[in-house]
Amino acid sequence: MITKIDHLGIAVNSLEESIKYYEEALGLHCHGQEEVESQKVKTAFFEAGEVHIELLEPTSPDSPIAKFLEKNGEGIHHVAFGTDGIEAQLKKASDAGLRLIHEVPIDGAANKLVAFLHPKSTHGVLTEFCQPK
Amino acid sequence: MITKIDHLGIAVNSLEESIKYYEEALGLHCHGQEEVESQKVKTAFFEAGEVHIELLEPTSPDSPIAKFLEKNGEGIHHVAFGTDGIEAQLKKASDAGLRLIHEVPIDGAANKLVAFLHPKSTHGVLTEFCQPK
Repeated sequence: MITKIDHLGIAVNSLEESIKYYEEALGLHCHGQEEVESQKVKTAFFEAGEVHIELLEPTSPDSPIAKFLEKNGEGIHHVAFGTDGIEAQLKKASDAGLRLIHEVPIDGAANKLVAFLHPKSTHGVLTEFCQPK
Repeated sequence: MITKIDHLGIAVNSLEESIKYYEEALGLHCHGQEEVESQKVKTAFFEAGEVHIELLEPTSPDSPIAKFLEKNGEGIHHVAFGTDGIEAQLKKASDAGLRLIHEVPIDGAANKLVAFLHPKSTHGVLTEFCQPK
């Protein structure tokens, strides 16, 4: 079952400038930064209630986020739904005819299991399921 | 202060098809539909934890959502942050140099005060502040 929106992933050109915006203009607090080598991104984290905001800056031109920025410019990249049963969630999506990017969950950041749905199946929203291990 | 993400607004071509997707593939429950004549949209609401998901289908070709769909296709249209002090939130944004669409809050749906920030100022995310009256 989906229990909440776990995080929003937002593609940005520059972490430094965007952190300044989220802190100064919105008043949110950046509570961590991390480089995720497998995705070729640097990330910065904020909290808004129970939802994390993850800013994503590419570290290489062949990062998926670099390609997203080239096509769309800055903006929301994906929505991650927290679930209490990621395998059942994937089965429900598959039974409804969706294309899954991950048929089985993979290891994600922050000690979570994650899986993505293909955006062609999700009415334009790149969608992730995630569950703490 | 921002207390949570109040809702995500998602532009869709057809409420009927998208409701089917959110219910059958994600397992969320549609708990209401409403037509907002001033914005020329029909909306459907879902809950994911403390965040509402608002699907938005245009009812006229000159709806802001129709223009968004024409340019971008289906996808996330805006993020609304819940705040406990919308006037102070707007002042903070203005002091940080942001362009405000609403200098003072206006009446929104569901008995809330709302105000939008100009997306040119917000690193690509159309941003709303909202506060219950």
